[in-house]
Amino acid sequence: MGWSTADRIVVRGRDLPSAILGKLNLGDMAFLELTGRTPSAGESKMFNAMAVTLVEHGVTPSALVARLTYLGAPEAMQAAVAAGLCGLGSVFVGSTEGCAKMLKEALPEPGVKSDLTALARKIVAEHRARKQIVPGIGHPIHKPVDPRVPRLFELARECGFSGKYVELIQLVQAEAERVSGKSLPLNATGAIGAILCEMGLEWRIARGIGVMARAVGLVGHILEESREPMAQEVWFRIEEEATEHVKPGKR
Amino acid sequence: MGWSTADRIVVRGRDLPSAILGKLNLGDMAFLELTGRTPSAGESKMFNAMAVTLVEHGVTPSALVARLTYLGAPEAMQAAVAAGLCGLGSVFVGSTEGCAKMLKEALPEPGVKSDLTALARKIVAEHRARKQIVPGIGHPIHKPVDPRVPRLFELARECGFSGKYVELIQLVQAEAERVSGKSLPLNATGAIGAILCEMGLEWRIARGIGVMARAVGLVGHILEESREPMAQEVWFRIEEEATEHVKPGKR
Amino acid sequence: MGWSTADRIVVRGRDLPSAILGKLNLGDMAFLELTGRTPSAGESKMFNAMAVTLVEHGVTPSALVARLTYLGAPEAMQAAVAAGLCGLGSVFVGSTEGCAKMLKEALPEPGVKSDLTALARKIVAEHRARKQIVPGIGHPIHKPVDPRVPRLFELARECGFSGKYVELIQLVQAEAERVSGKSLPLNATGAIGAILCEMGLEWRIARGIGVMARAVGLVGHILEESREPMAQEVWFRIEEEATEHVKPGKR
Amino acid sequence: MGWSTADRIVVRGRDLPSAILGKLNLGDMAFLELTGRTPSAGESKMFNAMAVTLVEHGVTPSALVARLTYLGAPEAMQAAVAAGLCGLGSVFVGSTEGCAKMLKEALPEPGVKSDLTALARKIVAEHRARKQIVPGIGHPIHKPVDPRVPRLFELARECGFSGKYVELIQLVQAEAERVSGKSLPLNATGAIGAILCEMGLEWRIARGIGVMARAVGLVGHILEESREPMAQEVWFRIEEEATEHVKPGKR
Repeated sequence: MGWSTADRIVVRGRDLPSAILGKLNLGDMAFLELTGRTPSAGESKMFNAMAVTLVEHGVTPSALVARLTYLGAPEAMQAAVAAGLCGLGSVFVGSTEGCAKMLKEALPEPGVKSDLTALARKIVAEHRARKQIVPGIGHPIHKPVDPRVPRLFELARECGFSGKYVELIQLVQAEAERVSGKSLPLNATGAIGAILCEMGLEWRIARGIGVMARAVGLVGHILEESREPMAQEVWFRIEEEATEHVKPGKR
Repeated sequence: MGWSTADRIVVRGRDLPSAILGKLNLGDMAFLELTGRTPSAGESKMFNAMAVTLVEHGVTPSALVARLTYLGAPEAMQAAVAAGLCGLGSVFVGSTEGCAKMLKEALPEPGVKSDLTALARKIVAEHRARKQIVPGIGHPIHKPVDPRVPRLFELARECGFSGKYVELIQLVQAEAERVSGKSLPLNATGAIGAILCEMGLEWRIARGIGVMARAVGLVGHILEESREPMAQEVWFRIEEEATEHVKPGKR
Repeated sequence: MGWSTADRIVVRGRDLPSAILGKLNLGDMAFLELTGRTPSAGESKMFNAMAVTLVEHGVTPSALVARLTYLGAPEAMQAAVAAGLCGLGSVFVGSTEGCAKMLKEALPEPGVKSDLTALARKIVAEHRARKQIVPGIGHPIHKPVDPRVPRLFELARECGFSGKYVELIQLVQAEAERVSGKSLPLNATGAIGAILCEMGLEWRIARGIGVMARAVGLVGHILEESREPMAQEVWFRIEEEATEHVKPGKR
Repeated sequence: MGWSTADRIVVRGRDLPSAILGKLNLGDMAFLELTGRTPSAGESKMFNAMAVTLVEHGVTPSALVARLTYLGAPEAMQAAVAAGLCGLGSVFVGSTEGCAKMLKEALPEPGVKSDLTALARKIVAEHRARKQIVPGIGHPIHKPVDPRVPRLFELARECGFSGKYVELIQLVQAEAERVSGKSLPLNATGAIGAILCEMGLEWRIARGIGVMARAVGLVGHILEESREPMAQEVWFRIEEEATEHVKPGKR
């Protein structure tokens, strides 16, 4: 990724002091690390917005894990962040990855003429046949619209990343809702999956963006825990209830 | 840190879709998470530059750890990033924290008139008496100057963060060099420690910035490992040599 | 630690197949790893009992962390165990280490004649002067006696490890209780700290025993979570309450 | 898993002080945690032997990761163990799990009459058709025989766990070797996978046993690193070579 001599430090072929510091923001630097090139203005705005979307989701399992870990090892906050990241696997961060992969496999060449409506029907039908959730579709709270999605798509239009993948995921959402008869909004991970495809980024990058963004958010949670602790109270309550539940003669 | 209802998502008192997405870059979002407020233009530039400095240092122990972990569990890249972060403790990331703390304790009120030269002498003398390295001073490769430092200080002047703490750390460096008779450059962690103090940020924040920045860099290393693997070869060589070393009759 | 050729595997100088497998139990193997020698019958019984004591403490922060991590990444249970271990720092496992260190420093040579009562007074007075808790003393639930302690001391007598360190920690406990006027039982970490000293094991080993023992317990929690999930419900409840707490107009 | 009151601590329905401490060794306690019952004498011997087999494999990626992590954060050895565990995923520990699963699916009811030779042929043919390695078969160093395997099978006979699964995995090994024309020994993970099936333990338990056993070994590596450091030298050499490799004008 980089090399250095006594008087030089080079990252991805660029001189760190003169070509990077003060010129790239943290999201741009992430883009450089992931792609090997610096982003255009549009790429910078879009990539930063996607990463920022994934920083903070309130009291997630990751945040609880980081806070509970910090409670036992306040001298090692890096390990509390690490513990929080360990759970960003198939269930939570997986849906961005899954959505991007699904769209890219359905439409390997966005320039080619395709019947997007037929593609959307096929995608939904296949997931129903396998009894799988369509990645990027549905949200327990944000109904009928996930408020991040219209804003992300607005930015995508502004930055020139609103093409067939964005169209396709919206058709998939409409079809999933039609077939199920339930309110199934497109969620933020679905929008980000589609925009990643528009930007020509590999679906493998999706999980990485979620992981780095969440590291930012977890540092925030740990600092908040150091100022306004909540982990100990959470632990005591859960322990008390669990003990009530298993102790004989108390059921 | 945040809350949400069916149609709203609020982070640190700001509406995520309308007030954050497309307006804050990833470094600004980190600043918001750490301080509870959005950065000014100067704070944004300076904070992003400091975070970017800490993203990537080539083949560090952290990067080796992340790659070796990915080798065994490629299906769980989040755990490879987590493993890499676990080593960001007292030895590596600690020096930024230690430098900021040392400067803040020496000069709790930057506005008050103080004899900075006398302070610098006192700091160096105390560390020598305790046989401790002065945090932020010295570098094994970047001699006589760490090339990141002049650039960080140039940005600090531009952004209005070049005051007594920056002056003091430079006096400390000169004094440490004078007393030891060796080349002891100010390193990037020392410059960042001083600038954090100039910005009025707590020294406790220092480790957190290092941890989030390195998470970005480790995702980069893992993607590179997935394209150009090096971890297996490293493992085989170290194992072979270690085995040669301990096997009887082979010494 | 070990080496292997095509037809041999040697660990700590012993042939694994013929000298270890079927002869050492898991606790004995841990003893071999930590000390470089196989335990005597008494050492085996005592060391296994201490490790077993530390395996399982019900719904600890570690157990909650492991379960919440497994919820997000069920395909990577090793990372859920890892996350759970990250919090075994100064606050929880630290007390065994701290107790063993305190006793060893107070009494470097157990054979030498010493006034143990005076030593106990000195230890308690010093901790009071520094406003520190005496490690190994006190328990929020197990009052007036931690039920593990009499059993561990009974085993220590049986196995020949009941000498001056065990006597000293009991004097410390009595003195701490006398001076504070509160019920301050000796807890299991205090008993284990004292017995480690009796066995001639380094205090540095203490944290390691806690970490390996808890890894066993966390695997148990994760398997239980896979059969009788509780993490999701914990998360939903904590999230709901936290949201109620911060949402405007809901306080 | 357990509960406690002021004067009692109960784990898995057993009184910890009187029914567990001094009676169960660490492997037995693990068996209790995983199955909810205490092992018979044969189960104890066999289970401990399997766990002990997985403790230590010399300079593995896990051991390197733990040592490199300890180098940066010596104050947090629990995080170094955690980092080492993070890589015990599909590639290394996965083969025990995969072997046990494969055998159980091929032979769900070991008591039923089956043509084991035909089953072995089918298993090998299916893996060849999918271009997959048969889990538990093959070893880079231990040829023609993994020295742990005959000893594990000897113990299995002694303890009453040598039935159709052990027979089947040996037939699979012979068939794989016959069809490939190469030396493909049965390895320790294959033997353990088969014995787990003989013992009636779920294949899901396999990874857990590997994780807890390796935690024991990693604590050993970290203590060795604290006495005879090797991680820094490994890092310096790898970094130097990597830098030589990427610096321009040096290729």
